Amino acid sequence: MQQNHKPTLKLRRLGIDTYKEPVIYIREDSYICEAEGFEAQTRIRVSIKNNHQTIIATLNTVQSNLLELDEVSLSEYAWELLGAKEGDEVQLVHPEPLNSLSDIRGKIYGRPFTRKGITEIVKDIAAGRFSDIHVASFLTSCAGDRLNEEEISLLTEAMVDVGERIVWPCGNGLVVDKHCVGGLPGNRTTLIVVPIVAAFGLTIPKTSSRAITSSAGTADTMETLAPVDLSFQEMQNVVAQEKGCIVWGGSVSLSPADDVMIRVERAIDLDSEGQLVASVLSKKIAAGSKYVVIDMPIGPTAKVRTLEKANKLKNYMEDVGKQLGICVYVVFTDGTQPIGRGMGPALEAKDVLAILQRQKDAPLDLRDRALMLAGHVLEFSPDIKKGAGQKVAAQILDSGQAWEKFQRICEAQGGMRTPPTAQYRHDYLSGRTGEVVSIDNRRIARVAKLAGAPTAKAAGVVLHTPIGTKVQNKQPLFTIHAESKGELDYVLAFIEADGSIVEVQ
Amino acid sequence: MQQNHKPTLKLRRLGIDTYKEPVIYIREDSYICEAEGFEAQTRIRVSIKNNHQTIIATLNTVQSNLLELDEVSLSEYAWELLGAKEGDEVQLVHPEPLNSLSDIRGKIYGRPFTRKGITEIVKDIAAGRFSDIHVASFLTSCAGDRLNEEEISLLTEAMVDVGERIVWPCGNGLVVDKHCVGGLPGNRTTLIVVPIVAAFGLTIPKTSSRAITSSAGTADTMETLAPVDLSFQEMQNVVAQEKGCIVWGGSVSLSPADDVMIRVERAIDLDSEGQLVASVLSKKIAAGSKYVVIDMPIGPTAKVRTLEKANKLKNYMEDVGKQLGICVYVVFTDGTQPIGRGMGPALEAKDVLAILQRQKDAPLDLRDRALMLAGHVLEFSPDIKKGAGQKVAAQILDSGQAWEKFQRICEAQGGMRTPPTAQYRHDYLSGRTGEVVSIDNRRIARVAKLAGAPTAKAAGVVLHTPIGTKVQNKQPLFTIHAESKGELDYVLAFIEADGSIVEVQ
Repeated sequence: MQQNHKPTLKLRRLGIDTYKEPVIYIREDSYICEAEGFEAQTRIRVSIKNNHQTIIATLNTVQSNLLELDEVSLSEYAWELLGAKEGDEVQLVHPEPLNSLSDIRGKIYGRPFTRKGITEIVKDIAAGRFSDIHVASFLTSCAGDRLNEEEISLLTEAMVDVGERIVWPCGNGLVVDKHCVGGLPGNRTTLIVVPIVAAFGLTIPKTSSRAITSSAGTADTMETLAPVDLSFQEMQNVVAQEKGCIVWGGSVSLSPADDVMIRVERAIDLDSEGQLVASVLSKKIAAGSKYVVIDMPIGPTAKVRTLEKANKLKNYMEDVGKQLGICVYVVFTDGTQPIGRGMGPALEAKDVLAILQRQKDAPLDLRDRALMLAGHVLEFSPDIKKGAGQKVAAQILDSGQAWEKFQRICEAQGGMRTPPTAQYRHDYLSGRTGEVVSIDNRRIARVAKLAGAPTAKAAGVVLHTPIGTKVQNKQPLFTIHAESKGELDYVLAFIEADGSIVEVQ
Repeated sequence: MQQNHKPTLKLRRLGIDTYKEPVIYIREDSYICEAEGFEAQTRIRVSIKNNHQTIIATLNTVQSNLLELDEVSLSEYAWELLGAKEGDEVQLVHPEPLNSLSDIRGKIYGRPFTRKGITEIVKDIAAGRFSDIHVASFLTSCAGDRLNEEEISLLTEAMVDVGERIVWPCGNGLVVDKHCVGGLPGNRTTLIVVPIVAAFGLTIPKTSSRAITSSAGTADTMETLAPVDLSFQEMQNVVAQEKGCIVWGGSVSLSPADDVMIRVERAIDLDSEGQLVASVLSKKIAAGSKYVVIDMPIGPTAKVRTLEKANKLKNYMEDVGKQLGICVYVVFTDGTQPIGRGMGPALEAKDVLAILQRQKDAPLDLRDRALMLAGHVLEFSPDIKKGAGQKVAAQILDSGQAWEKFQRICEAQGGMRTPPTAQYRHDYLSGRTGEVVSIDNRRIARVAKLAGAPTAKAAGVVLHTPIGTKVQNKQPLFTIHAESKGELDYVLAFIEADGSIVEVQ
């Protein structure tokens, strides 16, 4: 190619976020568009001069002087994937054809994926070579229970292989983990399980996510108590010192293909069982865990809605785990209502602190669930008999060892913090005397989000009346916490318009 | 809701073109994003104050001061759909949930589509309520022979119902049509059949598509000879005057859902049989044709590869046609090699001109096939006996009536044009002396595409040596035409890497 004929194209930041779809912005009337025949929606292979990274981005053309003729911009995700800086020189070419599309076509016609086929697909996804259309077609071809156990294993392995993988030099100790298959507000057991298990002496290097559609992710809650944005090296140091950590997983690229698939899956509201299993297990395997307890809440507004589906998922998780050399133990839990009282980062952190500090009014449901899960994790240890774990977990919590360990972990992660308190509060009162018969998990989580969570750390909702509580007319059902008057007013208007969230009969 | 708390949002033009996907740009830190929980990739229902149009657009958030906090921008297509002007005040809300997604999920799990379900899906697609992700998921759920004949009929009807439908006031004349089930490079018989049939006196209002996965669609080829982007009224005028036309189907909005589906199908390179039947028949029915000849080339690298698949498609087409009140006649043709010599819009147009103008070196294979198909179409006329059509067609072509008619049609469509010639050419030479034993249709079409076709009108490939040709070492097998040096270099690199396209033994 006679590169010298082409003008140099330099990167400029426009600050447009398209989430996980890499987009490139170029002037429609630029030399490169005319020479290469690039048009809006063309897929373009983008590389930075003197940089090994290459991505495929979708072209959005610019018809104004937002960019100069020799300037190019990227969506935020594309900047990140390329590790690009403003002023870098880019090279743009037509991408090679995607051979992995023929594997998807084969699957559509009923041919099971081969190891080679699925590996290519996952590589293409992780490298950003698939557009949303390709990812949607792949996910649909897998949905409807069309992945057999062998294929789920291959998919999981492929997802592990495209990311970083951690090997813990734990010598004689076990590397354990716990994970919740999402969908339940306030379910912050991780912050209690990790210090119990670490205090016992097992290695539990926990990576957590931030909120995607919820009012707080575990990483958001932990962040009100200690820094979570640790480098891989810093995380290793914390674990070497304290046996446990609770950090944000996003800073360690454990299963990059999964992040892309989750976004597309959400758009089509498709729950592919095979994808869910591969998503969870790939992250655990990449994190170097060998023994994993999975908390699977079941309920009408939770992610897993029926026992039948739960059983199927449990079998897949345990069998695929075994094939890939990890021991998975799935626990079914009640998913009918929020756990604890707080929803929102700081409010959930306060529930956790109340339990760790053995305060009298600590929420018992969260405590019980955390002890039960910690018990199952401890039973991976050869020193704990089957069925005896929960009692040991309770001793570690009640003796103050867990609280001690939690503080040490926070200090090791960069220093313990006090969760903030919101300035504006509003009690939402019951309109009648009766008993709480149901709580809409999705709607109460939405109230917490509208109040500002998780961005406003102190914002959220505190639920006072779990299902079964007898309430008087005018008794507070929940309290809204907000950091600004505007947000509080906005939530109140939403509740006014959108009806009952806690149903009293 | 307390609307008075919300600031007014005003439109500003950024001039970003995302092709047919409506996108909205809003500051990430704006009140509306925080209050409504809008994030990058959220789907938002957008309306303009004092304007009836409403669209659903995908959110790209802005993290810089490209926009002010109270400003909003749209992609060019969204401006157009909304008929919006700079400074207009916009209203943004969460769109209602798409109920039709549950029909797609049902299909994925094996439940056949109902009339209501498929009608909702097609309506949502035609109204732009589906994102590309949704369309891709729908198409994938249908692919792999997962639509039965009943579903194909329902899909076809639904696709007709969401578009315009033409009723021809043809009095005593028949409204006929011909269509080729793609996959054969250079197979431009339409441009020869239409003038023959129209010259004979039957009404043949032909709407054609642009290239889907090929290097040129009939509309792309015709566009190098005359305008094809006619309004419905303009098309009617052409047909009233000349009895025939060759226009781009997309501009007449005959099957608007099909246009969206074809664009997404192209990206995943997926050929669903049910979609194919519905796509073809919906356009024929909407175009008001009652008698249709379908050219179905069969060959190892054509779209239809086996006689078995051809028979299945033939049965679907004829049976679904009958159910929907049209007479379909399917003709199997040889699909083992390209037809004519050129591949690419202008190069194929030149083959057509050579035949219509009865040039001595006109490609005989294209001429013979066009006459055979025209013959079958003419046999729909009560005046032509079964088996006598081809001879009549040859008389009309040889007498110059067809060429005369073609020029009149071009003039009526807006004026005849001369096809462009490419600036860059490269002869690809045989590496040995021998006989051409096979040609890879897909790979040679790919070469034409990589050379720039169909976007670059003059680009493509001219094949000099059909199967059976004796060639000398260093004799040109085909010539690549490109409009830019970069594209030519790219094709040569592809051929270098990907081996033999024309096999000489």
